[in-house]
This record gives sequence, structure tokens and C-alpha cells, in this order.
Amino acid sequence: MELVSIADVRIAADDIAGTAVRTPLLPTLWDDELWLKPENLQPVGSFKLRGATHAVARLDPAARSRGVVTHSSGNHGQALAYAARAFGVPCTVVVPEGAPRVKVDRIRALGAEVRLVPPAHRLVEAERIVAATGAALVPPFDHPRIIAGQGTIGLEIVADLPEVDVVLVPVGGGGLSSGVATAVRALRPSAAVIGVEPELAADARDSLAAGEVVVWDVDRTYRTSADGLRTNLSALTFAHLRERLDRIVTVSEEEIAAALTRLVREARLVVEPSGAVALAARLFHRDELPPGRTVAVVTGGNVDPAVLASALASGG
Amino acid sequence: MELVSIADVRIAADDIAGTAVRTPLLPTLWDDELWLKPENLQPVGSFKLRGATHAVARLDPAARSRGVVTHSSGNHGQALAYAARAFGVPCTVVVPEGAPRVKVDRIRALGAEVRLVPPAHRLVEAERIVAATGAALVPPFDHPRIIAGQGTIGLEIVADLPEVDVVLVPVGGGGLSSGVATAVRALRPSAAVIGVEPELAADARDSLAAGEVVVWDVDRTYRTSADGLRTNLSALTFAHLRERLDRIVTVSEEEIAAALTRLVREARLVVEPSGAVALAARLFHRDELPPGRTVAVVTGGNVDPAVLASALASGG
Repeated sequence: MELVSIADVRIAADDIAGTAVRTPLLPTLWDDELWLKPENLQPVGSFKLRGATHAVARLDPAARSRGVVTHSSGNHGQALAYAARAFGVPCTVVVPEGAPRVKVDRIRALGAEVRLVPPAHRLVEAERIVAATGAALVPPFDHPRIIAGQGTIGLEIVADLPEVDVVLVPVGGGGLSSGVATAVRALRPSAAVIGVEPELAADARDSLAAGEVVVWDVDRTYRTSADGLRTNLSALTFAHLRERLDRIVTVSEEEIAAALTRLVREARLVVEPSGAVALAARLFHRDELPPGRTVAVVTGGNVDPAVLASALASGG
Repeated sequence: MELVSIADVRIAADDIAGTAVRTPLLPTLWDDELWLKPENLQPVGSFKLRGATHAVARLDPAARSRGVVTHSSGNHGQALAYAARAFGVPCTVVVPEGAPRVKVDRIRALGAEVRLVPPAHRLVEAERIVAATGAALVPPFDHPRIIAGQGTIGLEIVADLPEVDVVLVPVGGGGLSSGVATAVRALRPSAAVIGVEPELAADARDSLAAGEVVVWDVDRTYRTSADGLRTNLSALTFAHLRERLDRIVTVSEEEIAAALTRLVREARLVVEPSGAVALAARLFHRDELPPGRTVAVVTGGNVDPAVLASALASGG
């Protein structure tokens, strides 16, 4: 299987300039060797905009004019809608019936068409739209261009902190972690890239231990508050992580909540639980991490206001 | 009176690189011609770090080794403590008895000494320390280097958005607005720089109308939630604003609260009320503003968690 290269990541970086925000590294007051990469500041509130923008940019113009489709109702759906609008092409997002109204409204506000279908029919409906319209399917993580797009985060981290020693990156479907590991390995081979998962969705840890993709089904993973990290790896992302990720650290729900509170109160960032897991590893599992200058990727900020209010009320 | 020049601002930019964060411009989802400059992401939570860092950097090494002093207990006190720590020099912050414990704790955590005195004795105590120790007094806004340091925000705005048409900047003591107007006037003369004040602390508006510094005393200005903007202008900042600011727009307390809610919920930024006034002008006083590509400076994020929780609970 051919893996994404640093050259691919550099092409993605050119594509996303002007659409995705070049986020800074933020030093923290409480830890002299910790910086945050605040991807919650992307206009759609997550890093997903990088991969989606690169994927749309690389469609040939004829294909692109027929539009794009996805079956992710979460951050990738919003990201693809934004990227499609930036290129002036139609976008359809297939959303499971029962998805939160606020997500549907946000996707529509970005000009995308929303198709509500029973959850089990999402993929079939997306494929039907592809067949009927010639639109391109843009998956949330299982594609080399998505991996290359998310990898631009690693490129920026090394550019801004050339002497980085450790990069902590959340692992869901593995698109982000594959891309970041690709870039950091190539540009700063001495740095460790550590994946972080919730204990309640540790399928990537199990996969790397087993040497093959291990699936945790949704009956298990729904229990984590980090809803962006419930997804399993694909063969493509597994191949990247096996080759390029140093290892996985897992964090508890209490640790995720405490890290979220810290980010809101001390770093002034509104984050979602999935966006707090990398910091949770630094705060609570330092003995499992290599020492040195560390960057924690804060992936997204699309949080339920009630979750945020409870984080503010807690002692953290 | 000699005003700060763009050359002064460029020197400040060199001084602060590596200590203050180079904040990006953030596009907003709800307004295609609006960008936010998120200074709440500075490590001490406000733009004040820029001026304080430049002021400390420009002390000659012998003077600097004797330390720095200020009598501001707010964002400038934290900023000076951080800048002094970055240069490895002692810092004393004179704080009025009765100041919130959290502010005192934050200043101490940055390694500065805190001197608690009755509110009326603050300036005298700071001057006593200067006389006794040879430390340098670094005021919060009434100094050319503070103005030049805050002006780096204007430099960055024009670098990142060369075709900017309007810059909206909060006005308290006038250090920030003087600096930003200096930089933007020099680099993009066609752009308008508009000051924004709370209706309940509109002393700069009155001053510009009267042609001289008009003082609103604390019995009036304490009513605004924007505690960072209760200060009056100095002769130095008035001279800059009269020459370089296009005009002042005022916003109500309700408008400030709604803008704060918008920033938390839609831009994922934790902000204090003073940090929301520029956005409030764009949201609610667009008819008083020139059209075109607009940047709102979000000045700080040191907000009481209870204020933030109430912003989340509101409909905004």
C-alpha cells in the first residue's frame, strides 16, 4: 500500500493557504515546555477543513463542477460544505435522521444540501447521489488527500517549533494522526509522535498491538464524551500509523473533562471533548511520554454549550 | 508633542517576536467581510503583553537588571510580570487592597512580587519602589513604547489583509488605539480606524469632540461591564487619537453582552467584555461604519467564569 509522502503534504499546504487558517502555536502559562495547536479556531471549528479543502482543490475542474458529497454529519460535513462554498461548487451532506438540529442548521447555513436518511442508509444514499449526479465522494479520513491535508498541521508545527520533541495528536479514524506523523517523521525524525485515544475508544491502541485493524463497535465507543474519536481505523490509516506513529496513550473521561476545563479557563479556547484528549495525556500521563518540548493538537471546538457551562462550573 | 512613528512600531515588532504570539486573522462564518484579531490568545490573555515586552526590551541592561514596577492590577500587571520573567528581571506589581484574589494569584504565579496598598496609595507606592530600588516604572498606556508595542497589532493586520478597509479597536486609556491607528494610517492610508467605547465610558468620544482630554470619573465609568475600558485618555494618547483616529462609535451593555456570546459560541474564543466591544460595533452599528473588509480587535479573555457561564446560557 502506498503511503502519503511529505511531498504530498507540501502540495496540500499550498492548496489550503487562504482557505484554512494558519494557526499559531500557543505557549501555556502552566507548563514551560508545552504549546497548543488550536485547530478549534478554523472557521468551521475543526482541523477537518484542511483535508476537505485539499480534496476539493485536487478534483479536476470538470469533476469538481459536478459537486461533492459526504456521509459525515459531524465536523467533516461542515468542513466539506465550507470548502465547496470556497470553490463555488455544490455540496450534499447525507445526515442520519435524529442528528442534532444545530449540526444540520450549520451545514445548511454554509450553502450545502442536507439529505436526511435512516442511519443505516447513509453510505448507500451517498453512493446513489454519486451515481446519479457525478459528484465526487469525499470521505472523512480514508483517503490519501485527506491524510495529506491534515498533515499540514505537522508541517506547521515543525516550522514554528523546529526543536519540537513530542507531538500529541488525537486518534479517531486516523486521518489526522497519519498526516501529522507523516510530516513530523520526515521533517524532525528525532521527535516522537504519540497518538491519544479515550480509554473508551481505544481501538487504535488495540489495532497496533494486534498488528491488524481491530474494530470496536458502536455499542462500546458511544460511551466516550469524545464523539469525534469513536471511529475505527481504515486499512489505509492503520498502515500509516503502524509505520509512523510511536505509540498510543489512553485517557479517562475524567481526564478529558479536566483538560477541557483547563483549556477554557487557562488558554481561553472553547473546545469539544475530542479536542482536549491530547492535553489530557500531557496533564495526566506524563510518565508515559518522552520528555521535552511538546505540542498538543487541539482539534476542534464544536461543543454543546451545556457541556461547556459545566466545565466552567467545575473546580478545574 | 512627538508622536510614535511607524518606524517605532517596526522596532517593537522585532522586540516582541518570540515572546508575544503572532495572532492570525480569523474569518467569521456569519460575515464574509469580517475578520477577528484574537489577542485573548496571548499567554497572559491580552494584547498588553506586546507593549510590556517592548518596554522591558528597550530598557538598557543595567536599568533592566534593577527590575520593573507597575501600579496596574489588571491585564497590564500580568503582562509586565510575564515580560519581566521572559527577560529574567524582578517585577513588582502594586495592587489595591480588595483586588480579586484570582488576579493577585496569577501575578504571583508569574514570579512577580505583589504589594497590596490602599487604592489611593498605588501610584505613590510605585514611585517609592522606583526611588528605593532603581526599578523602572512601566505604565499601562501612557508611554511611547507601550503605544508602539500595541501598534504591532496594526502592522500584523495590514500584513495579513493588505486590502483591509476598516479596523475596529477598543479605546480605554488609548494605548492600543493610538498604536493601531499609527500603524494602519502609515501602511494603508485608505483604511479607516474606528475607536469603540462603551456608552458608559465614552470619555474618548467626548474628548475628541471637545478638542481636549475630558475626564469621566470612576463614579460614572464603573457601571460598564467592560472594566478594561474605564480609563481616561492621557495627553499623549489624546494627541495620537486626534491626529490618527477616524472616529469613535459607542456600544451599549446589551450589545457588548451579545457580542461576547457570539464570540464564545460561534468563534470559539473565551473573551472578556472589553474584548467584545469592537465586534459589537460591527454587529449593531454597521450603519455608522464605512463598508468593506473589516477587522475587529478582540483584546482580551480574562473573564470571570460566572460571566462566561451566563453568556453561554443566553440565547445569543
